Amino acid sequence: MALNVTQKLVRSHLLEGEMVPGGEIALRMDQALLQDVLGTLVMLELEAMGIDQIRIPLAVQYVDHNLVQNDNMNQDEHLFLRDACRRFGVWYSRPGNGISHPVHLARFGRPGESLVGSDSHTPSAGALGMLACGAGGVDVALAMAGEPLHLRMPRVWGVRLTGRLPDWVSAKDVILEMLRRHGVEGGQGRAIEYHGPGLDCLGVMDRLVIANMGAEMGATTSVFPSDAATRRFLRDEGREEDWIELLADPGATYDIEEELDLSALVPLIAKPSSPGNVVPVREVAGAEIVQAYIGSSANPGYRDYAIAAHVMRGRQVHDRVSLDINPASRQVLEALMREGLLGDLIHAGARLHQAGCNGCIGMGQAPAAGRNSLRTVPRNFPGRSGTREDSVFLCSPETAIASALTGTITDPRDIGIPFPRVQPPRRSAINTAVFVPPLAAEAARGLRLEKPAGIDALPDLSPLPDEFEVHVLLKLGDDVTTDDIMPAGARVMPWWSHIPRTSEFTFEPLDDAYVHRAIATREGTGHAILAGSNYGQGSSRENAALAPRYLGLRCVVARGFARIHWQNLVNFGVLPLTFANAADYDRIGQGQTLRITGLRGWLRAGRDVPARLGDGSGVPLLHDLSSRQIELLLSGGAINWLRNRLERRSRGVA
Amino acid sequence: MALNVTQKLVRSHLLEGEMVPGGEIALRMDQALLQDVLGTLVMLELEAMGIDQIRIPLAVQYVDHNLVQNDNMNQDEHLFLRDACRRFGVWYSRPGNGISHPVHLARFGRPGESLVGSDSHTPSAGALGMLACGAGGVDVALAMAGEPLHLRMPRVWGVRLTGRLPDWVSAKDVILEMLRRHGVEGGQGRAIEYHGPGLDCLGVMDRLVIANMGAEMGATTSVFPSDAATRRFLRDEGREEDWIELLADPGATYDIEEELDLSALVPLIAKPSSPGNVVPVREVAGAEIVQAYIGSSANPGYRDYAIAAHVMRGRQVHDRVSLDINPASRQVLEALMREGLLGDLIHAGARLHQAGCNGCIGMGQAPAAGRNSLRTVPRNFPGRSGTREDSVFLCSPETAIASALTGTITDPRDIGIPFPRVQPPRRSAINTAVFVPPLAAEAARGLRLEKPAGIDALPDLSPLPDEFEVHVLLKLGDDVTTDDIMPAGARVMPWWSHIPRTSEFTFEPLDDAYVHRAIATREGTGHAILAGSNYGQGSSRENAALAPRYLGLRCVVARGFARIHWQNLVNFGVLPLTFANAADYDRIGQGQTLRITGLRGWLRAGRDVPARLGDGSGVPLLHDLSSRQIELLLSGGAINWLRNRLERRSRGVA
Repeated sequence: MALNVTQKLVRSHLLEGEMVPGGEIALRMDQALLQDVLGTLVMLELEAMGIDQIRIPLAVQYVDHNLVQNDNMNQDEHLFLRDACRRFGVWYSRPGNGISHPVHLARFGRPGESLVGSDSHTPSAGALGMLACGAGGVDVALAMAGEPLHLRMPRVWGVRLTGRLPDWVSAKDVILEMLRRHGVEGGQGRAIEYHGPGLDCLGVMDRLVIANMGAEMGATTSVFPSDAATRRFLRDEGREEDWIELLADPGATYDIEEELDLSALVPLIAKPSSPGNVVPVREVAGAEIVQAYIGSSANPGYRDYAIAAHVMRGRQVHDRVSLDINPASRQVLEALMREGLLGDLIHAGARLHQAGCNGCIGMGQAPAAGRNSLRTVPRNFPGRSGTREDSVFLCSPETAIASALTGTITDPRDIGIPFPRVQPPRRSAINTAVFVPPLAAEAARGLRLEKPAGIDALPDLSPLPDEFEVHVLLKLGDDVTTDDIMPAGARVMPWWSHIPRTSEFTFEPLDDAYVHRAIATREGTGHAILAGSNYGQGSSRENAALAPRYLGLRCVVARGFARIHWQNLVNFGVLPLTFANAADYDRIGQGQTLRITGLRGWLRAGRDVPARLGDGSGVPLLHDLSSRQIELLLSGGAINWLRNRLERRSRGVA
Repeated sequence: MALNVTQKLVRSHLLEGEMVPGGEIALRMDQALLQDVLGTLVMLELEAMGIDQIRIPLAVQYVDHNLVQNDNMNQDEHLFLRDACRRFGVWYSRPGNGISHPVHLARFGRPGESLVGSDSHTPSAGALGMLACGAGGVDVALAMAGEPLHLRMPRVWGVRLTGRLPDWVSAKDVILEMLRRHGVEGGQGRAIEYHGPGLDCLGVMDRLVIANMGAEMGATTSVFPSDAATRRFLRDEGREEDWIELLADPGATYDIEEELDLSALVPLIAKPSSPGNVVPVREVAGAEIVQAYIGSSANPGYRDYAIAAHVMRGRQVHDRVSLDINPASRQVLEALMREGLLGDLIHAGARLHQAGCNGCIGMGQAPAAGRNSLRTVPRNFPGRSGTREDSVFLCSPETAIASALTGTITDPRDIGIPFPRVQPPRRSAINTAVFVPPLAAEAARGLRLEKPAGIDALPDLSPLPDEFEVHVLLKLGDDVTTDDIMPAGARVMPWWSHIPRTSEFTFEPLDDAYVHRAIATREGTGHAILAGSNYGQGSSRENAALAPRYLGLRCVVARGFARIHWQNLVNFGVLPLTFANAADYDRIGQGQTLRITGLRGWLRAGRDVPARLGDGSGVPLLHDLSSRQIELLLSGGAINWLRNRLERRSRGVA
């Protein structure tokens, strides 16, 4: 049978299950990627699980989020992570090395291998012909402990690229076009595989732009073949020996088929405050801006900065605009310096920031209230920039720099400058010395892991009761993001690994009284939340499940869930249910009571979970859990479940 | 009569008073320097005074402090300042241009001119043969309105430099040696004038290092001649036409004379947590560090970074150490890039930050709690780094980089590397286009100044009553800094121009219950504070006077005051008194009552202000106010005073 690239990748890592869309499969993981704000929880989970050394060929801890250091907490955490890496056998990428995704691709990515990461943009590595999935920290910790990664076999969505990108149109416009066509839920349950002759004009870093923002469509992952472009990329990174060819078989088919003609694309822009609000740039042209932001994991390539430099050479940024240049990595920073391109940007009035995620996640660079900010980042959820009343647009580097020049939103084709052809850097800026390799296992064993004051051991969670009656403390609409549930930014993120403290910020952007109502239910029977469709989209942060669970959350009833958050809820013992009749969403108000009895039996028997409201009427609900997940859920989450299993094992029980 | 340089500068600007040490003099100001966190208050003061356009040849507003942008407040303020500059006729130096002091020197400084700045390190411009003083915002606003600057004629302290700096010893060690000899109060009431053959080995940017940290000795200003080195500097900056020669007359003398043999110096370091805790580096060598910080207004020169780059070329930063490179200006950043020196630092594992004050003022880069941080910044007051339990050392770039290499505090002479000779950059990186010139007055007049939510009009202050009985709400020791009174850092600084809100942080580092006690006195008779010597040292922030005044502070009794803070107290209507008998400090406890009657009469009659304690016993106190200051104080501060005067003038009263 002719296989596509996704199927080949799955087949070569399949430990359990069948390659049938929707069925649970268990995959062997080759690599794990951690970033600081979520990696710290993973280290705590490894500790709680009693893991000594990781049992996976490679894991890398990046420090790219908590870089501002408003107080001691950030550097306390960096030093904790450095120690934890030594303790568990993990590579440590120090602050200043850059954003995990492009750095991982350049230094550690290998075509044909699998990768799980505690960051929702982990599928970026699909650009290199890897099978790369974002997951909650517990799933990453389990994978590092040698357990398989469980997920639903996605439907493979083949997107055939034809034509060539016109001048001033780049990879960002390709993924914005996908978002324009299909919206932020369009990728759910799917792996997006790009193929066709249009691939020829996309280098690996362009492919990364597209794979990265597949996360914004809710896709399980995005996949590219490993071809001549992949080989060139690895050769430039001094690792040609890591290249293997990985192409779809002739005659391979896809569960869903689509065509995208690159030559028909125009510069696109996502309006506030969703990556799905995409329109042509010319439709919003002329609006005044105060910020243009270049960088992030969504546009981390050398060319993304180089094109901006070429445009600005000999010109000046509009004096109302803060042009914020955020190098994606130490390597890109060094290459841009050597070629004089960074100098062009600086001379034009740009502000250069440290290498890292920075303003993309609200760690600095928050724009003025109510003023327009154009950014090449992947997300513009409300308030994510750090500014509560923000107005953030997502666009290509071409559009961002054209707008920085004019001071208004501008289609780059309209600035009257000949399109600059970016050449690759003349000399490599590879630097392997800045990565700290793992200690030898014998040396690591003696180390004690000390936690600074801002990092707290994980709270104990009780098992899910068989019968419960809870109030709906919060009724939410569609597309609630994990940024809405657990805000990021310099104020909150330093506390992300201290659950009691970080829980105080839960749902702050949507309802700042939720915490007070919720905490009252903690010692009692807990509470429920009602949501619309695509609940928990965006970042993979597991504290968006753990913090409300800590506050007493027992059950979320939604029209639909985003994949990673759904898994995180299960991992921390929160029951995720959907409506059998979508219209029931409207019948249930905030404050309503929800009663479920005989839960254990219902879960094990099938998909139905009948519930009753306070007025005695019934609401038919559904679950979509595998039998493995049911056990995990009933025991109060993955850590309890693993702890019980290890205990049984040590008592000699099967 | 043979004059020294200080006397020549004073004489050429003298409007009132005599050049007799201790007497009040009024000086004509040629230039004003504003930075963002304190400049905003100046703009509000200009507005409150009803000023239309500034009446001074040049004023420049820098944006170098509030650069992190954790939320909208920072950029809201940047845009406010940009508008305010257009409104009042001020140059605007946008975010990313760099730190006010070195940028001002390079672009606007002129030998022989006078400069007043709303930043305590304004005397940095003394490096260029200017008469440059830090002052509270009100004094700067008055100067911008065309009023003279009033200060006490300092004693001129001639420091004769001989010899040449040894390898690995640089300008920072010169000023650390001065601090070692004389401590943080050693410069009070003095202008430090450097002269002698040792000057030949100090370029203008080296002189800036020394002039900058004269502020740490409490000096009124520091002064260098304008000589061949000054001419070279201005030529390199493309402004040779601004050079004039300004040398001491042959046979000129000084009120105090001192010798400093440069060739006898060794690398020095100020231990936590005062710039006065100076010891040889070798005395503390071997202690583990987690941070090495290069940059700030105290070491902003090209050579300060270049020497670090030469040391790190082909080497790696210790992997526990965050080597934070903070370019002082856009120009230095560009020059270092072009020469490849920044690339050497990046390749060695350094983190590059945006151009600005940054971590020096706790805007990011806060070190881990209780771990050692080595910094080339001017101040290491407790908590100023952003970390409450910090351990910050001050040193030269040579010592900082040697320690970054080894991971422990290291004398740079001990790293076994030949001393690198730094060459000046081969090509100038001058960039005048990034400064926004003032609008023409006619165009400016129509503009309305809109305040964002984080900026509040100044509170109204009532006149000082003739009789008052107040409780001593706080008893403090020696050397209390304005960082103790009004903390900086990313949490507090965005609120510095919103007095009701920023007052909530008053004295937080020393006594976090003060605000609650104080606020209860606001509507009543107010309260007093008791302090030791050198009260209010450090930064010139006037909210350290205005915020406690807003909370009801009426009187500070201290063993002694730092100059700028003393002036700020007067400017906001707080009565500063000293003890006639120093031992009385011990007699008065927190909670004690202090009663003064017939204040007006006492102030005008002489220096004595007799007070009574709660037990009826007397305490003889002293004031040191000029008759101008007495009027200003009694009317409730400078703004009331000026408002009254303009009102009288408009009513035709003299």
